[in-house]
Amino acid sequence: MGGDHAPSEIVAGAIRAQEELGVEVILVGDTQAIEASLKEHKSPCQLEIAPAEDVIAMEEEPLVAIKRKPKASINVAMDLVKTKQAQAVVSAGHSGAAMAAALLRLGRLKGIDRPAIGAMFPTLIAGKPVIILDVGANVDCRPKYLEQFAVMGTVYSQYVLGIPEPKVGLLNIGEEDCKGNDLAIRTHQLLQDNPRVAFLGNAEGRDVLSGQFDVIVCDGFVGNILLKFAEAVGEIVLQILREELPQGLHGQLGTAILKPNLKRIKQRIDHAEHGGGLLLGVDGVCIISHGSSQAPSIFNAIRLAKEAIDNQVLERIQSTEIKRAKQLDGINQPSEVKPSEDTTG
Amino acid sequence: MGGDHAPSEIVAGAIRAQEELGVEVILVGDTQAIEASLKEHKSPCQLEIAPAEDVIAMEEEPLVAIKRKPKASINVAMDLVKTKQAQAVVSAGHSGAAMAAALLRLGRLKGIDRPAIGAMFPTLIAGKPVIILDVGANVDCRPKYLEQFAVMGTVYSQYVLGIPEPKVGLLNIGEEDCKGNDLAIRTHQLLQDNPRVAFLGNAEGRDVLSGQFDVIVCDGFVGNILLKFAEAVGEIVLQILREELPQGLHGQLGTAILKPNLKRIKQRIDHAEHGGGLLLGVDGVCIISHGSSQAPSIFNAIRLAKEAIDNQVLERIQSTEIKRAKQLDGINQPSEVKPSEDTTG
Repeated sequence: MGGDHAPSEIVAGAIRAQEELGVEVILVGDTQAIEASLKEHKSPCQLEIAPAEDVIAMEEEPLVAIKRKPKASINVAMDLVKTKQAQAVVSAGHSGAAMAAALLRLGRLKGIDRPAIGAMFPTLIAGKPVIILDVGANVDCRPKYLEQFAVMGTVYSQYVLGIPEPKVGLLNIGEEDCKGNDLAIRTHQLLQDNPRVAFLGNAEGRDVLSGQFDVIVCDGFVGNILLKFAEAVGEIVLQILREELPQGLHGQLGTAILKPNLKRIKQRIDHAEHGGGLLLGVDGVCIISHGSSQAPSIFNAIRLAKEAIDNQVLERIQSTEIKRAKQLDGINQPSEVKPSEDTTG
Repeated sequence: MGGDHAPSEIVAGAIRAQEELGVEVILVGDTQAIEASLKEHKSPCQLEIAPAEDVIAMEEEPLVAIKRKPKASINVAMDLVKTKQAQAVVSAGHSGAAMAAALLRLGRLKGIDRPAIGAMFPTLIAGKPVIILDVGANVDCRPKYLEQFAVMGTVYSQYVLGIPEPKVGLLNIGEEDCKGNDLAIRTHQLLQDNPRVAFLGNAEGRDVLSGQFDVIVCDGFVGNILLKFAEAVGEIVLQILREELPQGLHGQLGTAILKPNLKRIKQRIDHAEHGGGLLLGVDGVCIISHGSSQAPSIFNAIRLAKEAIDNQVLERIQSTEIKRAKQLDGINQPSEVKPSEDTTG
C-alpha cells in the first residue's frame, strides 16, 4: 500500500517478479484495492494476498504509528517474516515506519547495535556499484556502529555481489589518517584494527563514485544528504542536457540523431534503476524502496531481496559479528570496551 | 607559489585581473620564478612583487608550518593585508595553511567564533548560485557557529550578489522541524529565532541545487564532502557524455554536430568556473582557490575578492554581529548563553 504509485505499480512489479524470478510474492494490504489492481494487470499467475486493514501515512511519526496500528500493512508484512511465512519484506512506503516495524517485530541481529540502510551508487566503472551505508537509519552514530556497518557492507558485497575482498572506505574530508571530525578519527582506528574488513582508508567526496571502493561507511546524516543530493544531481544533469543540447539549428539536428544515446545515458545516471536500499542488521531481509518507485524499481527490489536470501546474508553477518565478539572477549581489546564513546550524547 | 600550476597560471590570471578589473595585484613568492613567469607572459602592465623565501608544501601540518615558516609566501601575503598594504589575499595553495595564516595573522571579526569557507554552487536556475558554508574550515560545530555562518552568508548574498532578502536553509535530512542530528535540531531553533536571517527551513540533499535557497549552512565535515562530491559528479557526467554520446554511427555524427553545445554544458556544470571559496569571519578578505586553479579561476578569484572589498562585506558582517550580541545581552536569550552546547566534546 506504500509509495506514490500504490497499489498499481507495486502490483505490476510483483507480477513481473513472480513470473521471471521464480519467487512467490504475497501482496499485503487492502484486499479489494489489490484484487482490482491484479485484475487490471491480467496476470496469468496467482499472487497471494495477505489482508491488512490499516496503512501508515507519510506524515505520521513512525514509532507512534507502528505501535498504534498493529494491523498496518507494514506490520502485517513484518509478521509474515517473523512467523516464517515469508522470507523478505519489500516496502515503498514510509521508510521510517518500515525501519521501526522491522526493529520492533523482527529485532536486531546478534552483535549488531544499530541496523543501517545500505544504498548502491553507480560508479565511474560501469557495472561496479559501491554500497554506501548508512544512508538514513542513524543520524547520530558511535564509532563502533560505523565499524559494524563496514562488516555488514563487506558481507553483502562478498556474498551478493561476489567481490572476494571488498575494499572499504571511511567517508571523510581528507586522505590522511588524522583528518576528520571526532567520529571519523575514532572510527578510522577501529577499522584499521578490524581483521574482518579490508580497510583502504578515507574516502573523500570526490572518491565516492570513482569505483576504487566497494563499501563506504558514514553516519546516516551525511549518507542521507549525499544520497538525496546524488539523486537530484542525476535529474538536474538530464534537465541541463534537455535545455542545452537542442539549442541552435545544429543542436536540434544533433539531438534528434542522439535520442537513443540520451536514453542510455539516463539509464546509467538514474538512481531509480537500482531498486532500493537494504536494511542491514535486522533479523529479516528488508528492502526499503523509494517512495516514487514504479514497477521496474519494485521488480529490482524483489530481485535484491531474493539475492540476499539466496546468499544467506543475514546468517553470514551474524556469524561474523559473533565470532568477532568472542575474539574481542578473549583479547580484551581496549578500543572496543571503552564505556562512553558516543560523540553526540 | 601555491597550487598545481604555480607560478605560471597564477601569474597569467593576475595579469588579466590587473588589466581588466582595475586592481593592483602584488605577486608574493620567489622573485626569480615570478619574474621569469612575468617575462614569459609578456604583460604590458607592471605587477608588483613581494619577495617570500619559503613555501608551505601540501603535506605539511598547517598550524605547525605556519608558525615554523614566518617567511612562507602565505604568511607574507597575510601580513600585507594586516599592514594595509593590500586589501585581500588570494591563494591556490594549501587551504589549511591559508586558513591558519589568516586566523593567526589577521584574527577573527568581532562577534564571530569560527570563520567558515563559503562555496558557490550553481543551481537549476541559471545565474542564481547558492552559497554553502562551511565547506571545510570547521569539522565539529556548535549550533551557534552555524547560526553565525547563516548571518555571514546572508550579508555576502545581500551586498555582493544583490539579493535583498536571501533565503537561508539548514542542510538536513528531512523537511520537518524535528528532523536531523543533534546539531541540526538545535541549530534549527536558533535560526528560527534570529531576526537577522530569513530562515526558510531545512534543505535536504535534493534541495541544494534547486535554486530555492540562497544560503545553506552546515558543518564543515558535511559541506566538504558535498563540495568534493559535487565537483567529481560534474567531471563524471562529462566523462559519461564523452563515452556514451559518440556510440554508434548516429552517435558520432550527432556528437560532431553538437560540439559547441557540449562546451556550453561543460561550462555550466563545471565547478572550477567559480573561482574559489571565501573565507568569511576573519578580519581581511581571503579567497581560497582550488589547488587545480588555472588562469581563468585565478582571475575569477581576484574578481570575487574585489567584489567583497567594494561591497564592504567584512564591515557589514561585523556590525551585524555586534548589534546582535548587544541585543542578546539586553534580553539575555537563554539559547545563546548556555555554557556547553558543543555536540562533539
